[in-house]
Amino acid sequence: MSELDLIAAIRKQAGSSGGRALIRGIGDDCAIVRPKLGHDLVYTSDMALEGRHFTLDTHSAADVGHKALARSLSDLAAMGSKPVFFLVSLAFPQRLGKRWLNGFYRGLLTLAEQHRIALAGGDLANYDRVLVDVTCSGEVPAGTALLRSGAKPGDVLYVTGLLGRAAHALAADLRRYRKFQLRPEPQVELGQRLRKLGVSSCIDLSDGLSLDLHRICQESKVSAILEHVPAASAVTEEEALHGGEDYQLLFTAPKTKRIPADVAIPIGQMVPRGKSSVYYRDRPLTPAGFDHFA
Amino acid sequence: MSELDLIAAIRKQAGSSGGRALIRGIGDDCAIVRPKLGHDLVYTSDMALEGRHFTLDTHSAADVGHKALARSLSDLAAMGSKPVFFLVSLAFPQRLGKRWLNGFYRGLLTLAEQHRIALAGGDLANYDRVLVDVTCSGEVPAGTALLRSGAKPGDVLYVTGLLGRAAHALAADLRRYRKFQLRPEPQVELGQRLRKLGVSSCIDLSDGLSLDLHRICQESKVSAILEHVPAASAVTEEEALHGGEDYQLLFTAPKTKRIPADVAIPIGQMVPRGKSSVYYRDRPLTPAGFDHFA
Repeated sequence: MSELDLIAAIRKQAGSSGGRALIRGIGDDCAIVRPKLGHDLVYTSDMALEGRHFTLDTHSAADVGHKALARSLSDLAAMGSKPVFFLVSLAFPQRLGKRWLNGFYRGLLTLAEQHRIALAGGDLANYDRVLVDVTCSGEVPAGTALLRSGAKPGDVLYVTGLLGRAAHALAADLRRYRKFQLRPEPQVELGQRLRKLGVSSCIDLSDGLSLDLHRICQESKVSAILEHVPAASAVTEEEALHGGEDYQLLFTAPKTKRIPADVAIPIGQMVPRGKSSVYYRDRPLTPAGFDHFA
Repeated sequence: MSELDLIAAIRKQAGSSGGRALIRGIGDDCAIVRPKLGHDLVYTSDMALEGRHFTLDTHSAADVGHKALARSLSDLAAMGSKPVFFLVSLAFPQRLGKRWLNGFYRGLLTLAEQHRIALAGGDLANYDRVLVDVTCSGEVPAGTALLRSGAKPGDVLYVTGLLGRAAHALAADLRRYRKFQLRPEPQVELGQRLRKLGVSSCIDLSDGLSLDLHRICQESKVSAILEHVPAASAVTEEEALHGGEDYQLLFTAPKTKRIPADVAIPIGQMVPRGKSSVYYRDRPLTPAGFDHFA
């Protein structure tokens, strides 16, 4: 397995799914993209590291590929953007062989195809751990990207789905919710729908409701009163409040904005900035979600 | 050291050097960039991994930051593009502390400032090794990016500087060329000059002359006759031919194109595709540069 052979194989597997935007993908020093007139481009990078975000025992090669891309796609969703292209940096032990590598790219490219995002390039290295870093780019009409900073006092707080399943699967080692851990589904279509609905702020729930809500409050300079925690069946309140990797979207919208019930569940309201960022049951709620350096 | 504190500190250090293009940098789910009318955007990702591309014994925190960005900037240079923004994914052991982290960002941001490229975002993780992945983006007037695939038979082959210093420093553990290992200088200005001169193909010399020249030949479907290997003083021919991390630019231009002597040294010519990609001293030259999976 030489590097030239590897790149040729990935290039073949990636196909020519580049679409309109991608002028040149894998095979040069850089990929080349021609931006769409009147659109902004958004960018995010997310790492998936062996022993930290997954293990080779619990995650198949395809799970790792899926999860690495899903994390970044979820950020594109939170901006209300349409996916355009992505780059993948992959380090892996050569002893894993071609079969593992094929599985990885199958998981990655299946999800990519589903969301019509083109593999444009990346980097490869031989290393003793599996390390993935995915950079995704999406587009939005200029000036319309959803931000964390747009929430206003009086806005209603919403979440796009039930919470805590991934955390519960991890804590209780349950088969039932295992797929939420292994194959998280980024809310890409829903994010674009929220943008068109004109919501005021948005974030994806990767690190837990309490921490990510705190982030919206910080960036918007408001506080939030959490009135309801929509826990999935069998999930503890603790898991729903602080558990990571739900990959639902948390957003705010003015009271006057009609948010269809199939889009999201109202869970609270935004208020002028108080002493604490978030209040729950009349008490300050300390962010206890997944802090990578806690 | 909490993640929120860390991000706030990086955000402060990065400043507001975003320039025109960067609508929103660190602090949201994605960075937002408004592309310049009539321009293409180019993208590249490069990993710098502890134990593979550097060690903490030989490289200071600032060296690691510099090198991680330099690798990607060199790819932007090879496309003839003007740097616009970059994302940094960084995993590191928390025990290294704030001092190491400050050093890392100082090395990174000093080089960034020098080339006027804005830190737009990235990812952070606590891990037992230092791992960096840098994604850089640059712009070129639409359709003018330099490719590996544009070389034609009859073109002259050039390199922008003397070769083998980084490889020699590594092999001989010499102080003299140590800075070429620790602080490689990407040829960003020169890359843009080559684009304006109208050269026919270009690649950056990261993996060694023999391997990178092979790549130009493969992509351009031609062969090359190497006539001269411009080794730096005290460097062996082997090091100049196959040593990595020179970060000079290797390019081709039609015979009729005048290339100023301060820009590059002619080292050979391109010929119709033969049995081998590269010939040197009347014999096929096997690519023996740095193959990450050899």
